[in-house]
Amino acid sequence: MTRTSITRREYDEWVREAAALGTAVRYPITSDMVNDSAGIVFGADQYDAFENGLWSREPYEAMIIFESLNEPAVDGLPAGAAPYADYSGLCDKLMIVHPGKFCPPHHHARKTESYEVVLGEMEVFYSPTPSVEPGVEVLTFSGMPEGEAWPEGVALPKGREKSYEQLTSYVRLRAGDPKFVMHRKHLHAFRCPPDSDVPLVVREVSTYSHEPTEAAENNLAPLPSWAGVHDNDFVSDAANTGRLRTAIS
Amino acid sequence: MTRTSITRREYDEWVREAAALGTAVRYPITSDMVNDSAGIVFGADQYDAFENGLWSREPYEAMIIFESLNEPAVDGLPAGAAPYADYSGLCDKLMIVHPGKFCPPHHHARKTESYEVVLGEMEVFYSPTPSVEPGVEVLTFSGMPEGEAWPEGVALPKGREKSYEQLTSYVRLRAGDPKFVMHRKHLHAFRCPPDSDVPLVVREVSTYSHEPTEAAENNLAPLPSWAGVHDNDFVSDAANTGRLRTAIS
Amino acid sequence: MTRTSITRREYDEWVREAAALGTAVRYPITSDMVNDSAGIVFGADQYDAFENGLWSREPYEAMIIFESLNEPAVDGLPAGAAPYADYSGLCDKLMIVHPGKFCPPHHHARKTESYEVVLGEMEVFYSPTPSVEPGVEVLTFSGMPEGEAWPEGVALPKGREKSYEQLTSYVRLRAGDPKFVMHRKHLHAFRCPPDSDVPLVVREVSTYSHEPTEAAENNLAPLPSWAGVHDNDFVSDAANTGRLRTAIS
Amino acid sequence: MTRTSITRREYDEWVREAAALGTAVRYPITSDMVNDSAGIVFGADQYDAFENGLWSREPYEAMIIFESLNEPAVDGLPAGAAPYADYSGLCDKLMIVHPGKFCPPHHHARKTESYEVVLGEMEVFYSPTPSVEPGVEVLTFSGMPEGEAWPEGVALPKGREKSYEQLTSYVRLRAGDPKFVMHRKHLHAFRCPPDSDVPLVVREVSTYSHEPTEAAENNLAPLPSWAGVHDNDFVSDAANTGRLRTAIS
Repeated sequence: MTRTSITRREYDEWVREAAALGTAVRYPITSDMVNDSAGIVFGADQYDAFENGLWSREPYEAMIIFESLNEPAVDGLPAGAAPYADYSGLCDKLMIVHPGKFCPPHHHARKTESYEVVLGEMEVFYSPTPSVEPGVEVLTFSGMPEGEAWPEGVALPKGREKSYEQLTSYVRLRAGDPKFVMHRKHLHAFRCPPDSDVPLVVREVSTYSHEPTEAAENNLAPLPSWAGVHDNDFVSDAANTGRLRTAIS
Repeated sequence: MTRTSITRREYDEWVREAAALGTAVRYPITSDMVNDSAGIVFGADQYDAFENGLWSREPYEAMIIFESLNEPAVDGLPAGAAPYADYSGLCDKLMIVHPGKFCPPHHHARKTESYEVVLGEMEVFYSPTPSVEPGVEVLTFSGMPEGEAWPEGVALPKGREKSYEQLTSYVRLRAGDPKFVMHRKHLHAFRCPPDSDVPLVVREVSTYSHEPTEAAENNLAPLPSWAGVHDNDFVSDAANTGRLRTAIS
Repeated sequence: MTRTSITRREYDEWVREAAALGTAVRYPITSDMVNDSAGIVFGADQYDAFENGLWSREPYEAMIIFESLNEPAVDGLPAGAAPYADYSGLCDKLMIVHPGKFCPPHHHARKTESYEVVLGEMEVFYSPTPSVEPGVEVLTFSGMPEGEAWPEGVALPKGREKSYEQLTSYVRLRAGDPKFVMHRKHLHAFRCPPDSDVPLVVREVSTYSHEPTEAAENNLAPLPSWAGVHDNDFVSDAANTGRLRTAIS
Repeated sequence: MTRTSITRREYDEWVREAAALGTAVRYPITSDMVNDSAGIVFGADQYDAFENGLWSREPYEAMIIFESLNEPAVDGLPAGAAPYADYSGLCDKLMIVHPGKFCPPHHHARKTESYEVVLGEMEVFYSPTPSVEPGVEVLTFSGMPEGEAWPEGVALPKGREKSYEQLTSYVRLRAGDPKFVMHRKHLHAFRCPPDSDVPLVVREVSTYSHEPTEAAENNLAPLPSWAGVHDNDFVSDAANTGRLRTAIS
């Protein structure tokens, strides 16, 4: 391991170029969305991504998220809905991933997502079966499609290979495709193809995002039970901790 | 009253031009989204909008909706959430309104919305206080901002003036602005300014849209209790019926 | 023949929708560019295009041009260049053609053009050999590529078939392709594929456009010899006259 | 002076991010346009721009040019036009300038340009009077507008201040503005405002660009007299040499 942080210059160049790209595709990026939680490096060992830089096309877990909306949608709910309101709400994000880089394997107990590719192509890896919490009965309706087998030769981040094993399904999404829904409780990851000329740019519309990131830490919880909830459950422990704070030196 | 329908040619030109505009701003419009429920005329008396055409800048209630996602997000919910699941889910729409035309006053008991202007400017008229259902306790968190007073000289659709009376707040939204949230149970309407050079193009990200339109009528209900639910409650009775079926001759 | 003009309503809807589409793809359309010379119907017999409307996908010769620049570039030329300055200059246009419609066969003695597809696909038909003016020696450098044979089943405008006969080469251009150059003195035409979901939107960067259209008729000639020059030479006589004035009733 | 070159990593990140931004605004960037002549550092002393990086907002002379077209438009010219053909032709470029950075003062004896802002805002500095070559009579037609005075506090590149002195006119251009023409023989420079959230992205449509850059050095001259012509005349000698070759280490 060579590095355990990203320099301020590297970080700012990464995030500001991405913000400009987001603005160019008309995403409503306001200045408060360009902050130290936007660039995410998924664990101390992934800072090596910046040794050769984001255009090295090497496999690492690092990405950018610009969040334009994270609305709990609690207002106007019947009081009886309070115990379940954390499964609802509205979140809108622009996610930017450089060639070869990954959003690592994780699932959300509560959050259902949808993807809309804006630029580049999105390779999604996922588990077609949901994770099960023993003793908890859940509703089912449409489920996830089976997907395809992985293509040959996907270069995984070193030391993280095992965390991808249960994500046996694959789909490749392009601009103009129908929205692709990732139901809650399904493991998923995605990457930008290493040979891409552009970073992958994806809009994610989802239910509320429960993430105690640095940028969110002073937000008031809409309901007391939401305080401190972290609904991102990464397969790799290192990714889990990395999500919430970026080491900028 | 001069007309009670729109011709097939008028309808197709209206919807196809709008679909091209949506594609031009990169909204993921697929061919199944261009259907006979996309163009909406809010009641028999509003077909007069087509007497002088959509560029007459006259005030009528007519608009286009291209829906790229209406996901119930029922999969993976705890079984106990079933009675409240109709307040949740994910919907993504592109709405296109010609100069002077309106989306008429209505509210949703269940649906919370957010607006993102893509092209043109959006004049939103709304009630800052939610409607109250007697005997039902509801949660509150952020509420709606007070907004501004209406500007001078807003030309309302003839015969529909009364339906706008309770919408005393006003806000004007532009491309690049932060997302604007319209909480459930608040009356709202909006228009494209009559002097605009372009139709207003807005992306709406919201919770599930319960609308038994023609295009949706063969969809399976995710939960039995959702069947036939119409969560759009227009102030004007005529608008209410108009929403679900367009008279194309 | 059914019609010899387009109604004001039809014209305005055609041109204003196209202007909005141009704005959506960020072309710098200013209000003075939206005028009665923007919509072009190439001859009295082509007004039938509006009998079933622009989305009928029928073959007619009709298109829209928004001209953002027509700069003679005479300033600063050596005085000796005056006799040849009409071959130079800079013109930038956005051209919008509905499915099935054509820009009819023509050539320019002076104007060299280039195409950049912005939306949809462009089918170009052209002659790979330049027209020759007896006794005039011309320079040659790269010439035109040979192109492909026409695809099967291109539906030509009725009564205009003969005017396409010498345009034996074919190329299909898409967004992101390299600029395609059409050298001066080569016959050319193009269309939007009839099955397209969007109008074809093309940017043309060319040398100066000598066209005494209505909108241009009060412009001062940069050099006396330019006054009244019409450098658009259509194969069909009817198209030739149609170019300069649109009959709006 | 700290540096006399840019590293391969810095260069590639600069140019590839810019290429992605160009693609995002739909400029037709093909892979051959992303080369070692695209990123330009105007003289050995300007490599210091990379000491603190492109988002430092410091004043340096460095920019990116993606050239999608440089067509001599010689084909089909009357033979008598040969001595003047170098004033004609067609060039289309996307220029990308980071906040605070400049395209330095220069003029072209032959090239007339036009600017179209795509993203951000463009501050243009120019001389309203053309340079004069003694004994050469030139044509005049519209000339340059007078422009405004410079705003307060424009931070100029250190050591280059003198080269800006004759550029007394100023204009600020925005997306959607009419095309702005810069006639041949007028000194001009431009920058991206230092406080911009995005790099300035400008499309330049001009007559032929005579520049013996590395990328162009194997191109065949359309006419013998064009071989080796360098029509970019920078006020600062250092900028002049820097234009043609970038020192990548």
